[in-house]
Amino acid sequence: MTAPNAERRFEGRSAAPGFALGPAVHLGVGPVETAGEAASPEEERERFDAALAASAEQLNILADAADVLGAEILEFQLALIEDDELLDPVREAIAGGRAAATSWRARLDEEIADYRSAEDDYMATRASDLSDLRDRVLANMNGGFTAADLPDGAVIVADDLTPSTFLSLDWQRLSGAVLFGGSSTSHASILARSRGVPMVVDLGAAEIGEGDLLAVDAAAGSVIAEPGSDTLAAFTAQREADERLNKRAAELLKAPARTGDGVPIKVLVNVNEISEIDDLSPEICDGIGLTRTEFLFSGGAPEEARQYEVYRRLLAWAEGRPVTIRTLDAGGDKPLAGITVDGESNPFLGVRGVRLSLKRREIFITQLRALARAASLGPLKVMVPMVSVPEEMVAVRQLLRQAVAALHAEGVTAREPALGMMVEVPAAALMADRFAADFYSIGSNDLIQYTMAVARDVAGLGHLTAGDNPAVMELIRRTVAAGRARGVEVSLCGDMASRPEYAAPLLAAGLTTFSVAPAAVGRIKLAISEARALGAEARAG
Amino acid sequence: MTAPNAERRFEGRSAAPGFALGPAVHLGVGPVETAGEAASPEEERERFDAALAASAEQLNILADAADVLGAEILEFQLALIEDDELLDPVREAIAGGRAAATSWRARLDEEIADYRSAEDDYMATRASDLSDLRDRVLANMNGGFTAADLPDGAVIVADDLTPSTFLSLDWQRLSGAVLFGGSSTSHASILARSRGVPMVVDLGAAEIGEGDLLAVDAAAGSVIAEPGSDTLAAFTAQREADERLNKRAAELLKAPARTGDGVPIKVLVNVNEISEIDDLSPEICDGIGLTRTEFLFSGGAPEEARQYEVYRRLLAWAEGRPVTIRTLDAGGDKPLAGITVDGESNPFLGVRGVRLSLKRREIFITQLRALARAASLGPLKVMVPMVSVPEEMVAVRQLLRQAVAALHAEGVTAREPALGMMVEVPAAALMADRFAADFYSIGSNDLIQYTMAVARDVAGLGHLTAGDNPAVMELIRRTVAAGRARGVEVSLCGDMASRPEYAAPLLAAGLTTFSVAPAAVGRIKLAISEARALGAEARAG
Repeated sequence: MTAPNAERRFEGRSAAPGFALGPAVHLGVGPVETAGEAASPEEERERFDAALAASAEQLNILADAADVLGAEILEFQLALIEDDELLDPVREAIAGGRAAATSWRARLDEEIADYRSAEDDYMATRASDLSDLRDRVLANMNGGFTAADLPDGAVIVADDLTPSTFLSLDWQRLSGAVLFGGSSTSHASILARSRGVPMVVDLGAAEIGEGDLLAVDAAAGSVIAEPGSDTLAAFTAQREADERLNKRAAELLKAPARTGDGVPIKVLVNVNEISEIDDLSPEICDGIGLTRTEFLFSGGAPEEARQYEVYRRLLAWAEGRPVTIRTLDAGGDKPLAGITVDGESNPFLGVRGVRLSLKRREIFITQLRALARAASLGPLKVMVPMVSVPEEMVAVRQLLRQAVAALHAEGVTAREPALGMMVEVPAAALMADRFAADFYSIGSNDLIQYTMAVARDVAGLGHLTAGDNPAVMELIRRTVAAGRARGVEVSLCGDMASRPEYAAPLLAAGLTTFSVAPAAVGRIKLAISEARALGAEARAG
Repeated sequence: MTAPNAERRFEGRSAAPGFALGPAVHLGVGPVETAGEAASPEEERERFDAALAASAEQLNILADAADVLGAEILEFQLALIEDDELLDPVREAIAGGRAAATSWRARLDEEIADYRSAEDDYMATRASDLSDLRDRVLANMNGGFTAADLPDGAVIVADDLTPSTFLSLDWQRLSGAVLFGGSSTSHASILARSRGVPMVVDLGAAEIGEGDLLAVDAAAGSVIAEPGSDTLAAFTAQREADERLNKRAAELLKAPARTGDGVPIKVLVNVNEISEIDDLSPEICDGIGLTRTEFLFSGGAPEEARQYEVYRRLLAWAEGRPVTIRTLDAGGDKPLAGITVDGESNPFLGVRGVRLSLKRREIFITQLRALARAASLGPLKVMVPMVSVPEEMVAVRQLLRQAVAALHAEGVTAREPALGMMVEVPAAALMADRFAADFYSIGSNDLIQYTMAVARDVAGLGHLTAGDNPAVMELIRRTVAAGRARGVEVSLCGDMASRPEYAAPLLAAGLTTFSVAPAAVGRIKLAISEARALGAEARAG
């Protein structure tokens, strides 16, 4: 059983569900050799310039497709690729007769060593960005970037995946990913779930050889290397069963959700960017439970008219269903140039969400005006992120009412929308009934992060961030109870809502409104249909 | 009332209690002029070298007196002051006939501009370190450092105070500090409390002129500028009443603490470094509730024998009273070179405390061995920081038992000490009864930080970090209830325990053991004597 090709089973944690079967390919080794004779200085210089241009083009494409955070990382590399201080010594070495690849590697290795020797956190991060860039340019000199050489159907194996690495891989051709470290709440995991890429994280010290056949049941977190024929047959049967579930889920997609014992449940969708509604039918959901508005601010604070137009489109799309729009949630892992506070030692514990909005009032008031104008067109709900104390809701409501009054005084049609809050700070969950909110929406990602004191991007602490930690479930129960006592709706729009395995415990906690990734609607409705709601007597109590 | 010299009242938050009366001196302006003719190059060079030497000496003295964090900041400046790459251009300019001060300022301003233009958090922090250093050296060229020119009894006025700035001021001569921003849980505030410097933070946009007479009641967070004669008389009367309280507190210092209704309360002390017990009588307390061990690791992981010797000294000092020693709590805001993880985006939410110890087992086992050996000498208790899930306590207890067994096998005297946990992660407070701990100690500083999702060093969010937030008090009550249900002791060793105004609410929450800064013992015993314990019927329930 310990022979090199014997079947081995490893247990990790599920980051994105699905089945994957394919050869293991360890990430981090690409065609980046620098051996070989130098051609003429002219040819080497051409080769170098072409590789730089190709790399810049790839990075630009990735940056355009990436979210705010991803773009930030990629733009640092884009800045380097145009930095003459970095490039001139390479050009000189090439002019002196050295090969482009050797010169580039030598220059970058020297820079990386410099950064590393600083023994400083910031510098170490930059060193790893530099080595990413080094390998990309070398790969481009050798005929193409690493990812292009991955075999079809490969399962990516890595210690962890940065958002930029995730974005640079062609997931149409790959079948999934397994990570030795990582966390199910990391950005790579969120990306994997939203794109339907099966991913297992936190696998620990699993021994996986290059090219080993891997059978991955990502929902269960299980990885089997070199499965025997019986195992493979069982795996295939399970995979087919899953496909049948997907088929059943597809049938439920446009039906109202109902528990096994007949209780109606609302399923809303989360919208990250306005373009996401283009291919989406409003008939699959009961409305929008969360619209992130950060995308509107990536080029600086947008004008009221532009915001109004986006909010209007959302309402038109929803065809009378409620549309919940979250006010700007910048800061934390979402820095916005010119808006957020620089230099925070712990940005997740810093000036973010409503804390920032109350400090940058001119930006906030513009958003509230656009929201109040749109509220006259349909059932728009405004949701405030990172609320920690009741005074914050009082301050926001006052600003909202002032915005409505000012619009009316200007003769502009506007209405005061329902004003609710995200419950993502433990203090808010513990004391939810003291907040004057018209509705609550539990942000489980941040709530887990603060309750467990683990940032979502920390590698190797995945065992502390499982959503079913009893402390997290207790805070969810308390929030549901507060909503019931105050007679207002409680939804959950964090990542837990999109994962079928949490549907039953969340229903048992009393939750009756789920806000999920559009891709997850069918499977969540199916999971709901197979679970029981919290008993009527418990709901009343 | 709005005349320039009219009395004005401002309300901030208390960071360290006490009364201060003196002229306002805004920090950040020192005698750092660079005008004047250059003397001969030889004289200018001498002046420059002397200023560098004086600065290095001052920084070394400060670094020696500082805690781990303070020393780190100062050592960056010390490294710069010996960096020829920084200094050589200045020496060349001086040799070319320019004045030392002008040359130094020009060189540093150029470096600072470089760092600033990077538009990067890390670089901005380093830029402010550089400007600190620039002003210190300039001040030394002009006959002395800024602090020496502050009038006796001055009240420092600043936006915020870094630990290094705090450490560089002569608090024997100054009467207190008021900060427009800041937070009562910042390091400067902790330093102010431990040294008895009255300090008010988070004053907002208070208009305070240079030289304005300030009357500060720091416990109340109140600051009066240019008080009228009636106000001044009332202030003086209050201050004298406070002095009488201090006298009464001094009388209670060595008596056992008792509430107004006669319930005995334990008052333990916190020890940050072994040198602190030198001038301390064990008779003022019921033992040590927290010994930080980070000071042992500032030069790398210490040998078992060195640790054992320190633990032995603590037990000898305590004369039979219990001594609680916390295992290494590195990470977060306490990086240790070669031990902690570099490059964390949010170190407070990262690999720290027991999470780090379980990853760096060789270091942890050495500490557990030294603790188990010392436990054979007296009532030693071991406390584990940053516990989030029950499995961590199970893992630590297993390692502790293995260490005891290994010592016995080697023929070394050892005993398994009581093993308790810090309750500072919200998940631990919510689920305290599920942890197999022999005692609990509430770390209110971190508990507030995570419950409110505000890092202790964030400026301008002080309104979110008050200890009496009902969510924080609820978590304290739950922990006390868990301890009662499991029949084990619950103490509170965070900063709240050292503040008299929290004694009554903590007693009302059921707390019966306080672990406080040695300087606070008298006033806490006095506050306890004036409050009521939680009623016996509630305690039983």
